[in-house]
Amino acid sequence: SLRRIKASGLKLQLCTNETQATRESFVRKLRALGFDISVAQVTAPAPAACHLLRERGLRPHLLVHHDLVPEFAEIDKTNPNCVVLGDAAENFTYTNLNEAFRLLIGMEKPVLISLGKGRYYKETDGLKLDVGAYMKALEYACDIQAEVVGKPAKRFFESALAELGVPPEQAIMIGDDIVNDVGGAQQCGMRALQVRTGKFR
Amino acid sequence: SLRRIKASGLKLQLCTNETQATRESFVRKLRALGFDISVAQVTAPAPAACHLLRERGLRPHLLVHHDLVPEFAEIDKTNPNCVVLGDAAENFTYTNLNEAFRLLIGMEKPVLISLGKGRYYKETDGLKLDVGAYMKALEYACDIQAEVVGKPAKRFFESALAELGVPPEQAIMIGDDIVNDVGGAQQCGMRALQVRTGKFR
Repeated sequence: SLRRIKASGLKLQLCTNETQATRESFVRKLRALGFDISVAQVTAPAPAACHLLRERGLRPHLLVHHDLVPEFAEIDKTNPNCVVLGDAAENFTYTNLNEAFRLLIGMEKPVLISLGKGRYYKETDGLKLDVGAYMKALEYACDIQAEVVGKPAKRFFESALAELGVPPEQAIMIGDDIVNDVGGAQQCGMRALQVRTGKFR
Repeated sequence: SLRRIKASGLKLQLCTNETQATRESFVRKLRALGFDISVAQVTAPAPAACHLLRERGLRPHLLVHHDLVPEFAEIDKTNPNCVVLGDAAENFTYTNLNEAFRLLIGMEKPVLISLGKGRYYKETDGLKLDVGAYMKALEYACDIQAEVVGKPAKRFFESALAELGVPPEQAIMIGDDIVNDVGGAQQCGMRALQVRTGKFR
């Protein structure tokens, strides 16, 4: 169906909440599966966060997956004044969580940026707590509210639309998640279509 | 002042949210410091949880501090139908958190019992996330509400009063925490006194 969209002349942008790998490796995987996609056609939470960090002069402490770190290569990370939280998987250690917490609680106005708010996800070896759970832990401990980058945040869809150069009423979002995909897109004035594949139940 | 209370003939019960050690070792520490206290004079979250588990026929999976495990020695822990969460410290690993989550999400009606809801505490090497933060993570991931045993839960103070054999209006709670000590006690009809020591700021 991606090939048919391409042939039709319609513009295409992939919106993913993937935060365990760079867009480069994400695209490499898709291309290996036969999808003709470029890095510029992928909107993902990490680059959206980088945009926000630059805009506001924020220097992050990263608690993210090891494979995602290259996305932040050009961001100043010295003397952090915010924490960026992703699905860090094995990096969610007691030590790393306490370190992120200490940095936050030590800030005059703690800023926590979360690359999503998923509850959990499934891997071959079973269910895993997703970034949203750890976000809630830090929110509670610091008595703050995280800023969520990624689906279903309005800003996330807006940046995908900007990439396409298309107004919301001329775009349609297609996804399998009723909250992250359909709800998020509708919130910013796009139409949305839910497919009964992937995690649809 | 404990000696003066004793000499006056007033009854005394210590209410602690300590969940990193058994009452036995807690009392040993206090006695070494010169306080004449017995195990029966200590109301703590773990024995309160054991009482609740027995009452409701619950078999816990424990995610608690290693040193607290003996408090649950006589509780049936086979084929768990609830999770008991304490300040597990180094036991708060990615693996252990996922395990507790998987057990909960796999239950028809997930039951999470938390031995407190503290946000953080201070140790010699810095601030640490307390049990409340991990409780929030599991609550969010499973879309449930934990049952909190320990201060400031009403039931916790009631069990201390039962131990003393004294009605709430004849008891006074003395503590340094405005929420856990003073608020909790007042909620169950006791008077309360805040001392400006310990963690008072």
